[in-house]
Amino acid sequence: MLLTTINDPQDLKKCTQPQLYTLASEIRQFLVENLSKTGGHLAPNLGVVELTLALHYVFDSPRDKLIWDVGHQAYVHKMLTGRREMFPTLRQYKGLCGFPKMIESPHDVWETGHSSTSLSAAMGMATARDLKKEKNHVVAVIGDGALTGGMALEALNHIGHERKNVIVVLNDNEMSIAPNVGALHNYLGKLRSTENYQWAKDEVEGLLKSIPAVGGKLANMAERFKDSMKYLLVSGVLFEELGFTYIGPIDGHDMGLLLDTMKTAKQTKGPVLIHAITKKGKGYAPAEADSVKWHGIGTYKIESGDTPKSAPTYTSIFADTMMTLASENQKIVAVTPAMPAGSGLIPFGQKFPDRLFDVGIAEQHACTFAAGLATQGLKPVLAIYSTFLQRAYDQLIHDVARQKLNVVFAVDRAGLVGADGETHQGMYDTAFMRIIPNMVIMAPKDENELRHMMKTAAVYNDGPISYRYPRLPVRGVQMDEELKVLPIGKAEIVQAGKHVAIVSFGHVFEVAEQAVNQLRTEGLEPMLVNARFCKPLDEELLLRLAKEGYRIITVEEGSEIGGFGSAVLECYNRAGYHDVHVQMVAVPDYFVEHGSVKEQRLEVGLTAENIASRVRALMPTKGVVEA
Amino acid sequence: MLLTTINDPQDLKKCTQPQLYTLASEIRQFLVENLSKTGGHLAPNLGVVELTLALHYVFDSPRDKLIWDVGHQAYVHKMLTGRREMFPTLRQYKGLCGFPKMIESPHDVWETGHSSTSLSAAMGMATARDLKKEKNHVVAVIGDGALTGGMALEALNHIGHERKNVIVVLNDNEMSIAPNVGALHNYLGKLRSTENYQWAKDEVEGLLKSIPAVGGKLANMAERFKDSMKYLLVSGVLFEELGFTYIGPIDGHDMGLLLDTMKTAKQTKGPVLIHAITKKGKGYAPAEADSVKWHGIGTYKIESGDTPKSAPTYTSIFADTMMTLASENQKIVAVTPAMPAGSGLIPFGQKFPDRLFDVGIAEQHACTFAAGLATQGLKPVLAIYSTFLQRAYDQLIHDVARQKLNVVFAVDRAGLVGADGETHQGMYDTAFMRIIPNMVIMAPKDENELRHMMKTAAVYNDGPISYRYPRLPVRGVQMDEELKVLPIGKAEIVQAGKHVAIVSFGHVFEVAEQAVNQLRTEGLEPMLVNARFCKPLDEELLLRLAKEGYRIITVEEGSEIGGFGSAVLECYNRAGYHDVHVQMVAVPDYFVEHGSVKEQRLEVGLTAENIASRVRALMPTKGVVEA
Repeated sequence: MLLTTINDPQDLKKCTQPQLYTLASEIRQFLVENLSKTGGHLAPNLGVVELTLALHYVFDSPRDKLIWDVGHQAYVHKMLTGRREMFPTLRQYKGLCGFPKMIESPHDVWETGHSSTSLSAAMGMATARDLKKEKNHVVAVIGDGALTGGMALEALNHIGHERKNVIVVLNDNEMSIAPNVGALHNYLGKLRSTENYQWAKDEVEGLLKSIPAVGGKLANMAERFKDSMKYLLVSGVLFEELGFTYIGPIDGHDMGLLLDTMKTAKQTKGPVLIHAITKKGKGYAPAEADSVKWHGIGTYKIESGDTPKSAPTYTSIFADTMMTLASENQKIVAVTPAMPAGSGLIPFGQKFPDRLFDVGIAEQHACTFAAGLATQGLKPVLAIYSTFLQRAYDQLIHDVARQKLNVVFAVDRAGLVGADGETHQGMYDTAFMRIIPNMVIMAPKDENELRHMMKTAAVYNDGPISYRYPRLPVRGVQMDEELKVLPIGKAEIVQAGKHVAIVSFGHVFEVAEQAVNQLRTEGLEPMLVNARFCKPLDEELLLRLAKEGYRIITVEEGSEIGGFGSAVLECYNRAGYHDVHVQMVAVPDYFVEHGSVKEQRLEVGLTAENIASRVRALMPTKGVVEA
Repeated sequence: MLLTTINDPQDLKKCTQPQLYTLASEIRQFLVENLSKTGGHLAPNLGVVELTLALHYVFDSPRDKLIWDVGHQAYVHKMLTGRREMFPTLRQYKGLCGFPKMIESPHDVWETGHSSTSLSAAMGMATARDLKKEKNHVVAVIGDGALTGGMALEALNHIGHERKNVIVVLNDNEMSIAPNVGALHNYLGKLRSTENYQWAKDEVEGLLKSIPAVGGKLANMAERFKDSMKYLLVSGVLFEELGFTYIGPIDGHDMGLLLDTMKTAKQTKGPVLIHAITKKGKGYAPAEADSVKWHGIGTYKIESGDTPKSAPTYTSIFADTMMTLASENQKIVAVTPAMPAGSGLIPFGQKFPDRLFDVGIAEQHACTFAAGLATQGLKPVLAIYSTFLQRAYDQLIHDVARQKLNVVFAVDRAGLVGADGETHQGMYDTAFMRIIPNMVIMAPKDENELRHMMKTAAVYNDGPISYRYPRLPVRGVQMDEELKVLPIGKAEIVQAGKHVAIVSFGHVFEVAEQAVNQLRTEGLEPMLVNARFCKPLDEELLLRLAKEGYRIITVEEGSEIGGFGSAVLECYNRAGYHDVHVQMVAVPDYFVEHGSVKEQRLEVGLTAENIASRVRALMPTKGVVEA
């Protein structure tokens, strides 16, 4: 294989152009084979094989800076920069990261995982380059979906204004994680429909010839002009108005064209936007046929494209229950920032096409749009991943909570998320929401309780309310038939006990329960409490436990700093209880890397064994008479 | 005065069109007179007098929804909706709010204070209207500065795609708080330069005539075409590409034209953008001459426009020290999201024109742009208000802290901000930054220490570091000549003492010190500690205090939940100290409304008296022998 001789971009540069075609084919085969065993972002990477080869062929990384927006499409880049042999460890504990990672290679000059950051980073790098009077190219590769993120548009505005030498490669695959939405997407669609410059030039000629024949009223003329000119100016008028030189659209799988275009861009002064049309999943039929499914995938059989049947997840329970609630209550609508599939809302959208709003990658707008809906008496449910809710933090504070609007936050992917790793961990939602006035914050102990919390949120009408749930299969508990409304701010004592109370917040209850089950076999009987609410806290219960002499162990899958445990400390402090023994089991103060959730829990101490040993240490020693 | 007869928009509708001109003049006089005594956002409101009259004349508020972006330009709206007589209490404690406020009037359908939220809100309201099959108009008034906020662009994208009936009035005054920047701004400038449709029509005619004469090469022709068409399509091609009907530019002070245009917009299907050119400060010469100064102003003399000389502030110390530090270190650059004046950075920009980056209203981009600069070894200082840093929260977590980049966060307007009220309170920065790994968080006890913290941040190179300072005059303390580098994570014992230690974080130290001074006159001697760091905490000192039997009172001007006090609780908890007596003096869990900082502090208990009485209660009672 030619591919095995490429261990650095310098090796690539020695290849002939025909050899690049060979490499492209070998890379696709490599990706399809390797990812069948490890899983990963297959379709996006199959789509950028030629693009990545061309970039490394024409530019001089790491002197030239290659920045990958979102970053899940950097596998080919990783293969070409000396990491091919690490692919069997992809997204595994201590293995190759699924996103760019500076520590892995000097060719990774920017880390990411969230969308729409690449243009801002590129502008920063280009500005620093010019200040330092250095000479190099800065190239950002961004998808059409990511381009609608407000931050990317802010950056376009800045780059265009400053006329910085930045090359933006718009990787337009007509589909990011979901079918794209938005006017900008429509605009790109129009661009795509014109095959190349020649077409436009021909059109100009035809247009010119037709003009004298038109005659007649000026208004009609102007109108006709306008339509025609939209085709003429199809050469990216929107981007050109923002100060960019637009090149495209080009076929993002045509190696020769890619090389020529990139060489042109390299020599162009000021910002350039290369509009490359690619196909997600290119070269692997199952992925070409269903790029949403094959965006991020587990293991699969190469021949058939068969994937193991997936177990029901918290997300699927959320999705099913949304249908039930929306059937009961016309006011319930769902909002998603580009995650209809990820959030399980596709069937909801099929059943209630007028009541699902996919606003594209636009978390800020999603949140304030929901706030606007709520001002008019609707009951919007914003389905959003914990890590992406960070993008809408000001909107949550300033637009929703401050106006005390009835928006429901369905916080998915809360807690440890496994293979996506540190950029996607849902660590902070409890802590950053808890400090906001008017918030109600819930987390269910299992999938059955998730449904009750959703019902509770649906009938609550005193401001924003949230529930967090993990990226995990359900526990398989008994499901109640009726949906119940839980009393706000009340915890549940799941098992009575003595001396020590384990107070668990959220789905990590399963670990706490395991610990208790183990301890019971040893004759130890801690109390097991399911907190249900972080805000408002069940202060009454907490104070009673303290009065009765319980020592408290809080358990949560979230930041130890400022989280549920911290709320418990504050509760005792506020009440003037200055001698309660509280211990926290939570995620410590660092970014937890990729691996399985099990490995991550072990690493941070979110294990039954750790909880159990803490309980043992807090129990009265044998022989001491119990109270 | 005609104005006194207008107590509701219905009264306005009875006026003749000439009477509207009289009203405009009376409103201007009213604003100039009233604000000379109360202060407030004079220039923005003088700019929208005709616009607001026209909106209330043509539309039917509150059935039609009028949404004011940012909201500081809603004074005229308030006057026309029954609140004229409250203006002597503007922005004062318990008085008229400087921003839209639902509780004040049913005509305030959306509250704000931060920029760029109006389009998302409008889209939400319009969507709800259509779902409920109601008929009304939704109108958002947004400035050209606010339009560059990513969230506004996300919303444009959504509105245009859905072709919703939403009317956007682009209030283009060529200047928001600062001279605007960005490619979009350039684009608007081009639009402005074409006076009206007629001009464009004439141009079309001329163009048509000229075409046969051109002949020659197609390429030249196409180029010529393109340039000409940019004028032809000056009618908002960018907005039209996004799905909007563009009307304008129109003179935003021409009442007749405004009325006609709004009537047209009302009848147009799908989204409409009315591009109105206005002049900030219109009708009051001093404000017309310097709209930055007169954007938000204190009291002034009407005749001369003289304002009281302002005392030096923490912000001016920041600004001066930035000059010193930047002179010493070429790597230091400053980034501001549209606040060069507010952050005091105008002189910095004059001295170092290549090293000040005003990126416009674009907090997300500002933060990640700074991250990009930092990857290349520069030392960016992001000067940002506490409340606006909420907009860049994900960027702070995902782009800066996770990559451990050396970005300095100069968090201005931290703590209580006075007259701007709840939308602008800097309450949450300590709490929301504290939960992020790799952050260093400082707050100075006075302006002298601010300078040392800036020096400390300038030499720190192990990741992000922040310092917070208030919107307050300086205390007037002795200034050290040399800038010192403070040891990271070390507090300062300012006064030794017994039994009780007051541990203060940040500028509210002045209140803590007052309390101690009072107590000393009573013979009580609490220890007074200046914490300096919230992260890392001076755990060594805190543990020593506990061991020595001190009771602790933490003092901070920030959220009681999750803030500095909470960090102290966590510190003791982590160390296994379960019986330390800690009390917190901080801002409780609600949104604090406008007033003076003094009134706000009194309301929340951030007073020397409150601290002193807590200390008294914790001191050993007289007669008890002291340890």
